[in-house]
Amino acid sequence: MKKIDHIGIAVKDIDVSNALFEKLFGVSPYKFEEVESEGVLTSFFKTDANKIELLAATNQESSIAKFLEKKGEGIHHIAFEVTNINDEVQRLKAEGFVVLNEVPKKGADNKWVVFLHPKTTNGVLIELCQTI
Amino acid sequence: MKKIDHIGIAVKDIDVSNALFEKLFGVSPYKFEEVESEGVLTSFFKTDANKIELLAATNQESSIAKFLEKKGEGIHHIAFEVTNINDEVQRLKAEGFVVLNEVPKKGADNKWVVFLHPKTTNGVLIELCQTI
Repeated sequence: MKKIDHIGIAVKDIDVSNALFEKLFGVSPYKFEEVESEGVLTSFFKTDANKIELLAATNQESSIAKFLEKKGEGIHHIAFEVTNINDEVQRLKAEGFVVLNEVPKKGADNKWVVFLHPKTTNGVLIELCQTI
Repeated sequence: MKKIDHIGIAVKDIDVSNALFEKLFGVSPYKFEEVESEGVLTSFFKTDANKIELLAATNQESSIAKFLEKKGEGIHHIAFEVTNINDEVQRLKAEGFVVLNEVPKKGADNKWVVFLHPKTTNGVLIELCQTI
């Protein structure tokens, strides 16, 4: 794993939260993107070497809708940049981590993404991401 | 806010979790530190420009013990490095954020730290930190 690419934060209302994080960081989001396959609307803030990704659900089947229902607003995942996502998946499986989707799927921000099950990572949902 | 300094993760057993994160990152923690005033035992991993801080409770009054009891293991806070913590506290208060400790306290890793109440930050416990 090379570095933290971003931290994903689940929010109920993307406009309200964009305004809130604008105040917090003193900058506006630099990008907005809908990922239809995941049922999410995202916005990105740059914070030096990392990004903060706000995630709102666009339908009730979205994993973000389920997360909000169960846990409320808050940190959803940490994403680590990797050089070769397939190699990293194999390495982590061999170490005993449970991979949620072994075949990388297309996420926001032009990335291939794979998630690790929080039950094997101290309750932290970890995303591996590789720029496409 | 300059950058993400670290992400704090609450864990039940620091030895078990150190071994787990060693496997995940492929590196060992570079520092261990007890903060007696907070009732926490910490370990730090370097991930490029940021750090991951594991936090275990050393007594039942520790905020980490309470967090684990209520929410279980998982991400506890995000810490942002600031240049002047007192100025940043005043700026954020003026923006409507609720500050948990207006007077900075001494945290791990040689920092002055101030926390913002998650109720004003989308459920995210945010730490401001300034190197002493």
